Amino acid sequence: MSTDIHPFDRAIALVATGVPGRYQGQASRDYWNMVGPYGGITAAALVQAMQQHPQCLGDPVSITVNYAAAMGAGAFEIDADPVRTNRSTQHWLLTVRQAGEDGSLQVVTTATAVTAVRRQTWSATDAPMPEVLPAAEVQRAPALVDAVQWLKRYEMRFVDGILPAHSDGAERDSCTRLWVRDNPPRPLDFASLAAVADVFYPRVWLRRAARVPAGTVSITVYFHTGRDELAAAGEAPLLAQARGQEFRNGFFDQTAQLWSDSGLMLATSHQIVYYKE
Amino acid sequence: MSTDIHPFDRAIALVATGVPGRYQGQASRDYWNMVGPYGGITAAALVQAMQQHPQCLGDPVSITVNYAAAMGAGAFEIDADPVRTNRSTQHWLLTVRQAGEDGSLQVVTTATAVTAVRRQTWSATDAPMPEVLPAAEVQRAPALVDAVQWLKRYEMRFVDGILPAHSDGAERDSCTRLWVRDNPPRPLDFASLAAVADVFYPRVWLRRAARVPAGTVSITVYFHTGRDELAAAGEAPLLAQARGQEFRNGFFDQTAQLWSDSGLMLATSHQIVYYKE
Repeated sequence: MSTDIHPFDRAIALVATGVPGRYQGQASRDYWNMVGPYGGITAAALVQAMQQHPQCLGDPVSITVNYAAAMGAGAFEIDADPVRTNRSTQHWLLTVRQAGEDGSLQVVTTATAVTAVRRQTWSATDAPMPEVLPAAEVQRAPALVDAVQWLKRYEMRFVDGILPAHSDGAERDSCTRLWVRDNPPRPLDFASLAAVADVFYPRVWLRRAARVPAGTVSITVYFHTGRDELAAAGEAPLLAQARGQEFRNGFFDQTAQLWSDSGLMLATSHQIVYYKE
Repeated sequence: MSTDIHPFDRAIALVATGVPGRYQGQASRDYWNMVGPYGGITAAALVQAMQQHPQCLGDPVSITVNYAAAMGAGAFEIDADPVRTNRSTQHWLLTVRQAGEDGSLQVVTTATAVTAVRRQTWSATDAPMPEVLPAAEVQRAPALVDAVQWLKRYEMRFVDGILPAHSDGAERDSCTRLWVRDNPPRPLDFASLAAVADVFYPRVWLRRAARVPAGTVSITVYFHTGRDELAAAGEAPLLAQARGQEFRNGFFDQTAQLWSDSGLMLATSHQIVYYKE
């Protein structure tokens, strides 16, 4: 394992199996969360599978990833199937399987996605980047020795809504804004943008100031730029914003936006998250 | 065809084929849009397929529907596959196929969904219903003789952001708020809530005041209530709100909220929409 390869690229590396559309990867220890890899890294591996597929048309426009079960350590298999190819758009079904306790392959993640060849058109935004301090003027969140692995893979500078240090149970607004980039820095691409869209700690921890068990059930990412605009964003931090909408009977949703440091909307994202009592 | 059956129920009626999880439906003329059925009615049929499946666990929590190709008139087939069933959640893959010009079955729609058995927990909202005039005090949008069929299936009362009567090209905020319910009224359930989440005309028509060709590529609906709370919403109008976020190079996204008339958040929804020019 060369140390020249960025941990992110190691984590999403896929090997073609010989079966069309089937790729093998390894659950990343570098992005380990509590009971499995960080959800964002699985989303990134699915983007990678599409982009590696010889029939892939255009760039990602949309992906929805459903975490059906915790992924365990070791190998996993992705099936990436371009089920419908139109003139300028392509629709994908993706499934991640892993060997269960009895050795049989079981579905741990499902996804659908759309890729497209985009053309320049009239464009506008209705969600301009909020005015916040530039990244360089915001203190970097300290690296915590006992943190889960994936947290160490991101450089985070919280502008608003940092995780309350104490679970005081005081209810508050669930909005978080942070500057964030890969650690160490890495040029932005579709896979890393998909990964960072899941970077927010559970909104219920902020809203309720109580760290109850919680986990993403389904995340959707809409990509708003082409690969050239992503490349132009380079290694600069992104401004990432998330807010919960409704917390009810075991599930809450959040809506999120990701802007380049020059104020370009790169992606919007939504997720629904399980939480316990 | 009995006139006692509500057009919505006729539109989402599915017949089991004998193959497990496979159902046959008919593209609805009552909900016809320009070149195929209204996207919301397809989402509703997919919800119906899950709920009709003998292995369905709990109620819908999330569904993502991808419109891979325009559905034509006539029969279609839904495959509803509960690919992973956990203790209290279940993950679904759904595919809609229809005979193409050469008679072979082709994928026209894909979807993933999550159903769950929900339990009462701490709950809260971060998206309270905006203060607007009650439905009874808002003028009902006139029925247009030349409107597409599906528009006649909804009673709409626009509070804000009605479709500009003239394409004046003046750019404006893309927010629309309307009171909406089935026409004729029908008690709310998961299928009809999924359908109404797609009720908004394309945000680009409002933002840009130009009716360019546009069509939903992918929609996600998060359901925030159980069946009892939906039943309590009854036939009363819902307050539906949608706003575009980013319009760029052929695609825009929108974020939407749906509240009961008593102010309960019933669903949040997002979609990414293709637009031309």
